[in-house]
Amino acid sequence: MVMVAHSTRELAALTPQDIRRAIRAGQWRGLTAGLAAGFAQANLVIVPRALAYDFLLFCHRNPKPCPLLEVLDAGDPEPRDVAPGADIRTDIPRYRIYRQGLLVDEVDNITAYWRDDLVSFLLGCSFTFEHPLREAGIGIRHIDLGVNVPMFITNRPCKVAGVFHGPMVVSMRPIPYEQVVRAVQITSRFPAVHGAPVHVGEPLTLGIGDVQQPDFGDAVPVAAGEVPVFWACGVTPQAVVMQVKPELAITHAPGHMFITDRRDNELAVL
Amino acid sequence: MVMVAHSTRELAALTPQDIRRAIRAGQWRGLTAGLAAGFAQANLVIVPRALAYDFLLFCHRNPKPCPLLEVLDAGDPEPRDVAPGADIRTDIPRYRIYRQGLLVDEVDNITAYWRDDLVSFLLGCSFTFEHPLREAGIGIRHIDLGVNVPMFITNRPCKVAGVFHGPMVVSMRPIPYEQVVRAVQITSRFPAVHGAPVHVGEPLTLGIGDVQQPDFGDAVPVAAGEVPVFWACGVTPQAVVMQVKPELAITHAPGHMFITDRRDNELAVL
Repeated sequence: MVMVAHSTRELAALTPQDIRRAIRAGQWRGLTAGLAAGFAQANLVIVPRALAYDFLLFCHRNPKPCPLLEVLDAGDPEPRDVAPGADIRTDIPRYRIYRQGLLVDEVDNITAYWRDDLVSFLLGCSFTFEHPLREAGIGIRHIDLGVNVPMFITNRPCKVAGVFHGPMVVSMRPIPYEQVVRAVQITSRFPAVHGAPVHVGEPLTLGIGDVQQPDFGDAVPVAAGEVPVFWACGVTPQAVVMQVKPELAITHAPGHMFITDRRDNELAVL
Repeated sequence: MVMVAHSTRELAALTPQDIRRAIRAGQWRGLTAGLAAGFAQANLVIVPRALAYDFLLFCHRNPKPCPLLEVLDAGDPEPRDVAPGADIRTDIPRYRIYRQGLLVDEVDNITAYWRDDLVSFLLGCSFTFEHPLREAGIGIRHIDLGVNVPMFITNRPCKVAGVFHGPMVVSMRPIPYEQVVRAVQITSRFPAVHGAPVHVGEPLTLGIGDVQQPDFGDAVPVAAGEVPVFWACGVTPQAVVMQVKPELAITHAPGHMFITDRRDNELAVL
């Protein structure tokens, strides 16, 4: 059995390539937050080729919840654009296997499930904009509290594409009034990772009755002088895929992301 | 026979909806430059569904030459996002029909060619960023001279997607040295219409031996104190499609664009 020999602190100083190699060798099976600081991490959704056109079209029509970083060729496990040399089947610490929309397995590599008709979609992750927000002195409540970001199913339908449809899911971060403009500016630079907020202020306009009752993740307090700010969330595409109950779908396990070679700043539009 | 009753000046004051209605009624078959000022115009590429996944993937992988505004459902002639109520088969003044990559017909509507498996792609057009450049006092040489923009086949390969591959085509605009930074800033705001330049300065770095010998369009002079600035060009996707000789492909005729309801500024990222 392979030893899980590394600590987050040891891995944090390594390059994305070295970290992926450690993950591939079974030496790291933990969360990826804090690893390879400054490099973009990605969500993974794998579907059979028969569903790939509709899913690609869905992502194109809904770029805020589904910001595509790279779409691999059918059967090709190498993200040639964002991580040349990597292998999408082995370089993520934990995967989830879904059959007919039901979680049937959690594994640390997917070589046993791989097929020539599988198409891998890598989607941007809000880690990429949380780092520059913090560098600008804007606190991220769920990070400070060590919990998961609160997420909500909204009343905003995504644009339909073929078999895929469903509501947009958003994440919420409380921001002090005097930092809202800066938070909008900073996240606007990163359309490849959800970009600018979809809403600032009134949860009810998104159909959210109580910001203390998230549909996913953990509740975080909104203090006096703070406003809840909502960004489109990468849970949206996963929810939408599972709703059509594909015979096979594979994703990363929550918090266990794919680490790319792209620096966060390479994803900025300005 | 329907009278072609309108002048550019009369049409320029109309809304996009009214202009499309006039085009549909056969009352305008001319160029669309200058019409519906402030509203985005789009390139059209129609391919059979069998090629649509590869083409959508090609556009995703090459967003600078192929900035997608909207992809219509197979067989659906209505651009529900950028021009609800419009009909892509009748609302462009002039179309080109290609069989096996060869131009076989030029028509003012494509109802006779329409099929349930045709997928229409609307792509951003540089008209959208030329307007704010001019408003910032940056002259556009080919407009001032009343000729077509000079275009060049570069040594930069596009990223391959399925059957589609080929070099990037660029357009060139001479810009005075002291306005280059502003031109980069302004066009960076519009990634949906080719965005920031792909190169500033030395044509040879793109494999262009002589900026006075364009591959398409017309040569324009580069004066002392000016630098040639190159933007990715919408001719790229058309060239790439024709190279695979699809049994049927339909495009707008050069300069005869689809006029959308989207204001140019709605396409700006910031």
